[in-house]
Order: sequence, then structure tokens, then C-alpha cells
Amino acid sequence: MRTWARGALQKAVEFLREGDRFLVTAHRNVDGDGLASLLACGMLLERMGKSYEMVLHDPIPDERYSFLPGFTRVRSPRTPLPWSPGRAVVLDTPTLERLGDVASLLPGRGSVLNIDHHEDNNLFGGINLVLTEVSSTCEVLYSLFGHLGVPVEGDVALCLYTGILFDTGGFRFSNTTSRALHIAGDLVEGGVRPDQVADAIFHRRSPQAIRRLAKALSTIEFHCEGKIGLMWLDEVVPEGDGRTSEDTEGFVDMALFVDGVEVAAFLRKRGEKSFRVSLRSRGEVSVNHIAGRFGGGGHSRAAGCYVHGDLEEVRVRVLEAIKGAVCPDRRKDVPDRD
Amino acid sequence: MRTWARGALQKAVEFLREGDRFLVTAHRNVDGDGLASLLACGMLLERMGKSYEMVLHDPIPDERYSFLPGFTRVRSPRTPLPWSPGRAVVLDTPTLERLGDVASLLPGRGSVLNIDHHEDNNLFGGINLVLTEVSSTCEVLYSLFGHLGVPVEGDVALCLYTGILFDTGGFRFSNTTSRALHIAGDLVEGGVRPDQVADAIFHRRSPQAIRRLAKALSTIEFHCEGKIGLMWLDEVVPEGDGRTSEDTEGFVDMALFVDGVEVAAFLRKRGEKSFRVSLRSRGEVSVNHIAGRFGGGGHSRAAGCYVHGDLEEVRVRVLEAIKGAVCPDRRKDVPDRD
Repeated sequence: MRTWARGALQKAVEFLREGDRFLVTAHRNVDGDGLASLLACGMLLERMGKSYEMVLHDPIPDERYSFLPGFTRVRSPRTPLPWSPGRAVVLDTPTLERLGDVASLLPGRGSVLNIDHHEDNNLFGGINLVLTEVSSTCEVLYSLFGHLGVPVEGDVALCLYTGILFDTGGFRFSNTTSRALHIAGDLVEGGVRPDQVADAIFHRRSPQAIRRLAKALSTIEFHCEGKIGLMWLDEVVPEGDGRTSEDTEGFVDMALFVDGVEVAAFLRKRGEKSFRVSLRSRGEVSVNHIAGRFGGGGHSRAAGCYVHGDLEEVRVRVLEAIKGAVCPDRRKDVPDRD
Repeated sequence: MRTWARGALQKAVEFLREGDRFLVTAHRNVDGDGLASLLACGMLLERMGKSYEMVLHDPIPDERYSFLPGFTRVRSPRTPLPWSPGRAVVLDTPTLERLGDVASLLPGRGSVLNIDHHEDNNLFGGINLVLTEVSSTCEVLYSLFGHLGVPVEGDVALCLYTGILFDTGGFRFSNTTSRALHIAGDLVEGGVRPDQVADAIFHRRSPQAIRRLAKALSTIEFHCEGKIGLMWLDEVVPEGDGRTSEDTEGFVDMALFVDGVEVAAFLRKRGEKSFRVSLRSRGEVSVNHIAGRFGGGGHSRAAGCYVHGDLEEVRVRVLEAIKGAVCPDRRKDVPDRD
């Protein structure tokens, strides 16, 4: 670990030891690493004998994470806190805007500890424990537990493992480092059952979702000699089924994982004449730029945007944009529907 | 590591040091761990300055593993060896029958080193390095490299990582131990790119396969209050497309991963009036017993069998057998097709 990282760890330790009445929070639309690091941070404060409350802008979206200890203790910003917060710990959040309504509850900047691993973190805290070379915020927390001498086992190990597993895509993304795997090994030694965690966070779909996947897959078409894979769901997923965003999670990857595909797109209807477009790339083409043409964004390998129009209109516009990036010479060709 | 395991490792080391003209082989229909351990063992002998040949009964079934170094050096038992083998190393193989035609090329039992992790290994070797508490044969080999003092990096690390990743289902099965994760961490330190290996062995499907998956998913039906998920492919996958067995790999898991499903079945046509049935369980019900009723077998969580009849006949027979195990009281109910 680099010297400055050790310094930041030491400052974070002092910040936690000296303060009390901690507000603990993470970003809107919390994901596996955000939620798990939030809960693990609560456990750390518990062990330290501090009073703390965990608050998130949104209700936790689905039951997938209900196995995580402390899940039901997370509060809404609309419920008044029992005290005015003395200090805050913000986890897995690149900018304060990403906190939603929780941002207005924070004490002054000097009383905020910012723990994250995102490269675009804008260092909004009085103390910034932002380690961009680690897999996940839970991996940062693992170091913090170590510095504080708090044992990493049981419920703590379960949370930290979940965050690392989630953010590395089950140890399949390029942020799967040697250190992330070694820590995962330690956490299993601390009592984690890897099969159970993977099952809970990756291997659960509703019966409705599997039917939607069948429909979406049946539309798959390939273009530009199979370098582009495109599929869609011309059906609005009803509001209030409790899994709105998760229901089509991973659909676009099914198109990306076909031999020869370099860019994959999934169009999902979200209302009359409006589609959400998810884009993925194997790395050569930046889908961030393609999404940008429609006012969206993301990363070079994963991006998204909203496009207005009926299915055929949206399909043609998105496909033309992708062709422009993947096979510019063949842009005006007749699509090769396989 | 237990004392007897150390003893077996020491004997294996002597066996390799003292011998020459090694025949190296693994089971028929070789999988990721079998192939990767075969190639890693070849590298070990190479480093030791031994002459060796790697032989497998079947041609390697698909290009998925072509990234593994040494892939093209594997021979068929029909190609004569340059010498009569002095000793043999058999990897990842519970019984000699599983070697197919290679079994007849082996020297006498005393000259066979059996390296495996399967519980049902029948200890056919003169030396049996069979560690049943480890994740994979590649994990056994990792220990052997350590005992021999041969560094685990580069090509060797790539093979060992591949075998561990494959046999733990990408660190998602219950054999994902603390030690397996620690070793994986060491192998990444040795130069492995985890994202590239995962991509190669888990995230590749042919365009035909994705269309078959769409067809199969569209048939999914649930029974016994959603505890049984059943799907089928009423289409014979043409011989000679080079991916016959891999093409529908993982289809059955799609049904198992639906909320509430305890037992999943996938019926795949393999000829006029004949189906291959793949069964999976979340753990309560042993699908091994269900497959056994049709003359098949496997493990409690994964099993398979062949059933003769047309689709409807096979569907009804298999479903009745599953109902008998999952919901015996409701066995005669009308199926609740959702």
C-alpha cells in the first residue's frame, strides 16, 4: 500500500475514534458494493461503541440483499434522525449530488469522511480515503478494519465479501486483482459461504423476468458480419412489480457474449415512444461515445441512453450509430439479419 | 495439509523425478479442469527435462480452450507414440474406464500416478495423489509445483487458474474454499488476467446457441407452486457443428435460477424419440435419485439421463418423477403452467 494511502487510513481511524453521532450513507440507486459497505461501516461503528444511523435516499430496491445483516436498519431521509449528526461517513459515492436527499442532512465538509474507490471521485470530504486501484469500497473498508484492529469475520466478512463479489462481477471484471482474491480468501476463512452469496446476488430471476428474457433473446439480430448484436423488449415492464430496474439486468450481456460480437445493444421500452438503450463493448469501440450522441453516457465498455421514437425508429437510429463506430464502410448496407 | 497428503506429494515428486517417457492423460469429454491440469502437468515435465506426450481419447471439442498454451500439442490415441511409455500420469479421472482408448496405452499399475480430487476416485494408481477436499485437480497440481520448487507463473499460472475457475463454476460453487481463492490470488500475481480467462471459458456462445437458448427459454413452465422449472429443446443439434455438447451447456441453470425453483430440468432432443435430460437441484432434493430411475446418475445437485419417447411422453414421465420427489402430495394434480 502506498504511503499516502496509509496516511489517509490513519486519518480515517482518528476521525472515527474522535467523533460520535455518525450519519452513514451511500449513493442513490445503491448497488451491492454501496449497500454492503454501508452496512459494514455501521458494524464498525457499533464495535467502536459509537452511535450511528444508516440512511439512503431510495428504499432498497429489491429483496436480493435481504440476506445482508442490518438490511432492515437502513432509514429514509424522510424519517427524522434521533440527533443532529456530528460526523458523516459517505461510502462508494463519487460526488455529493449522488446522495440525493441525504446530502442536505450532512454536517459541514470538515466533518465528512469520504470512502470510495471510483476514479472520478471529486474528493468532497474533509478526509478522503479514496483508493482508486482497489476493486471496491468494501476492499477499502477491509483495510480500515485492519488498521483499527477489528476482526473481519461473521457478519462483517459477509458484507465485505458481497461488496467485492458484486463490484468485480463475480471475479470476472478486470478489477479482479490478486489482492481482491486474497482478501476474498480471508473472508471465506472468516465464515463466508461463497456459493450462497453468489447465488443470492447473481442467480435469482423472477419467473416474469425469465419470460422477458426469452422474448428479448428471440429478437436478437446480428449486423456487420456479426460484430454487432442487437436485441429489444417491446414491452413496458409494469411499475410496482418491485424489480423494475433489476428485471432486465444482464440482458445486454447475452448479446455481447456471442462469438464475434464486439458491440451489443439492448433496447427496452419505457413508455409510449421511448426506449432505454443499454450498450456494451468488448473494448475496441467506446460505447460511451455512441451513448453520448443520444445525450447519454457511461464508460467505454458500458453505457446507456434514452432514445425517443417507436421501436423501428429507435432500432434504426441506434444501429446506424453503432455501425458508424464498428463498421463505418458498411454503414449504408442492408442489415445482415442472420 | 494433512500428513498423508504430504506423504503422497512426496511420493509423486519421486515418481516424476525418477521416471521418463511419460504418458500424460485425462478423462474422456475433457472439461476445463481436466484439460488445464493435463497441459500444466506437461509443463511441469518439460521443466524437469523429461520426455512426455499428452494424449486424450477425444479431439478437444471446441475452440473455447484454444487460449491455453500447449492446446495443439495434445495427441489422439490413434497416433503412435514415439516410444513405449515408461510411466503415466492420469489427471482428473476417477476410474481408468473414463480414459477411453487411452487406457490401453498405459504401463502397468505400478507405473501410474493418479492425480485427482474426485471423491469417487477408485485409487487405480501405483501412487494416488487424490485430495478430495480441494476445489480441482489444478489445485492439487499447484501443491505439486510447490513441492517441486517449480515457479507458478506465466503459462503454468494460466492453466492452473483456468482449472480452478472452471471447477468452482467461477468461484460460485460450494467447493470455493478459502485456499482456492488464495491460490487464485497467487496465480493472478503470477500474471493471469482473470477477466480474460472468465471471458474465454464462460462468456462465449455461438449465434446458433443463443437462438437455441431463446427457443428453450420460451418453453419454460413451472409446476408445484413454482418449485419445479422445466424446459426443452425439441430440435436435434446437428452433428459436426463442432460444439455439440457445449451448445446447450448451462441452459438448465437458467431454469434453476428462477425464484422459488428447487429442481430444474432441461430436455434436449438427441434423435428420433430420444431425449437427453439434464437435472439440477438447489440442494434439498437429490436429482441423482431421479436420474437413477431412468438409468442415469450424477450428483445430488446435478445429474442426467436419457429417456426414450416423443417430447410429450418424456416431458410427462420426467415431470412425474420430479413431482414425486419435490411435491409428492400434489403428484396427480393438473400441472400449474404459469
